[in-house]
Amino acid sequence: MLDLPFLPFCVLLGGLGFVCVAFVSAWCQHWRGGFALDGSARTFNWHPVLMVTGMVVLYGAAALVYRLPTAWRGPKLPWKVLHTALALAAFSLAVLGLAAVFRFHNDHGTPNMYSLHSWLGLATVLLFSCQWLAGFCAFLLPWAPAWLRALYKPVHVFFGSTILMLSVASCVSGINEKLFFSLKNGTTEYKLLPAEAVFANTLGLLILLFGVLVLGALARPSWKRPDADSPDSCQPLLTAER
Amino acid sequence: MLDLPFLPFCVLLGGLGFVCVAFVSAWCQHWRGGFALDGSARTFNWHPVLMVTGMVVLYGAAALVYRLPTAWRGPKLPWKVLHTALALAAFSLAVLGLAAVFRFHNDHGTPNMYSLHSWLGLATVLLFSCQWLAGFCAFLLPWAPAWLRALYKPVHVFFGSTILMLSVASCVSGINEKLFFSLKNGTTEYKLLPAEAVFANTLGLLILLFGVLVLGALARPSWKRPDADSPDSCQPLLTAER
Repeated sequence: MLDLPFLPFCVLLGGLGFVCVAFVSAWCQHWRGGFALDGSARTFNWHPVLMVTGMVVLYGAAALVYRLPTAWRGPKLPWKVLHTALALAAFSLAVLGLAAVFRFHNDHGTPNMYSLHSWLGLATVLLFSCQWLAGFCAFLLPWAPAWLRALYKPVHVFFGSTILMLSVASCVSGINEKLFFSLKNGTTEYKLLPAEAVFANTLGLLILLFGVLVLGALARPSWKRPDADSPDSCQPLLTAER
Repeated sequence: MLDLPFLPFCVLLGGLGFVCVAFVSAWCQHWRGGFALDGSARTFNWHPVLMVTGMVVLYGAAALVYRLPTAWRGPKLPWKVLHTALALAAFSLAVLGLAAVFRFHNDHGTPNMYSLHSWLGLATVLLFSCQWLAGFCAFLLPWAPAWLRALYKPVHVFFGSTILMLSVASCVSGINEKLFFSLKNGTTEYKLLPAEAVFANTLGLLILLFGVLVLGALARPSWKRPDADSPDSCQPLLTAER
């Protein structure tokens, strides 16, 4: 496609990720009352911030680790550890984000897990937990056999992109749902498109753009680690990479 | 990944696409009052049915045309025409689906284009119209230069997958939004998870599964047309494929 080198792309993408986190934080701080841990709507506000930061921005960073040209040379182990650590950080934020919404619902007597957004979001986080655990067992445990790594790697890569796609769809449906909940009764209705609606809709589009750019970068053949499918990368770590 | 041949996968995918269309039609027919052209909520009901049928199922079929093993041999022109025709059919249904929701809004004095779902949905259809037109000009007009086809092809492929991803995100946010609108005042609330909510949430997950399977099939290297990137496929049609 365009002959853009990976590093300038990474800087742009990092900037976009930062803008996404800044936008979702500003939305919750400026229009939704800010943050607290008291079970009120201000506890709920951690949910969008933690989900966008974890399941979109940090997840995207974790997914792109092996595309860094510096990861192409030398032992793969440090990059595997970085990939795993970023994914674990993303997962931890997602769990905290789920805790925030469950706490808010429970304190208000609102049922959990009824909307399509909640079904999709929980399915995405559960899929991510399986992906992380299976990736850890197959690629970081030194006694995992080479045939298992070779067999599982394309599955891990496929679900890596799929989970990001599901995360983005969850964010979009969540922002849409939250605006319908919030923008009524005593505030300008969503359908009259107040400033908050324009701001949060823009946030949704920025998250989509971030997700599409990460998926595009992952799919781009010239940015893939050249030895990605060599037998070497499938050998047990303690043999291949010390 | 799994060593599944393309044709049995296609049959399964076709079955899933049929189930998606059947589910969205059954939802609108059984719980939302059926279909009409009178500007009422029964006019709106054409919107989800036409969008799912056009922007997900028919779009997915169009995207996978070149993965058919029978499309790998012989002239490419008939497959290009089939790809273009299916995409045009998908686009036409999408335009009718948009007309249905605009008609419903206008007849009820509801503003158009305020929700994130509507912004994303319209952006997706506009992107699709650009994709179709650019694809037609670059790949079907015989006088398009080979260098332009070679340059544009990866862009077309990238946006092909991106538009499907955006369509699926639009559908999920739209179903979620519609359930919040419909399941209140005189009916069991969404949060109490009546049968309609379970049914439509399941529809959302089935649409996601369909989209993920199409994107996975498109990304699978062994299912790609072997000559896909050969210079031959980039030559003007009347020279290369008569």
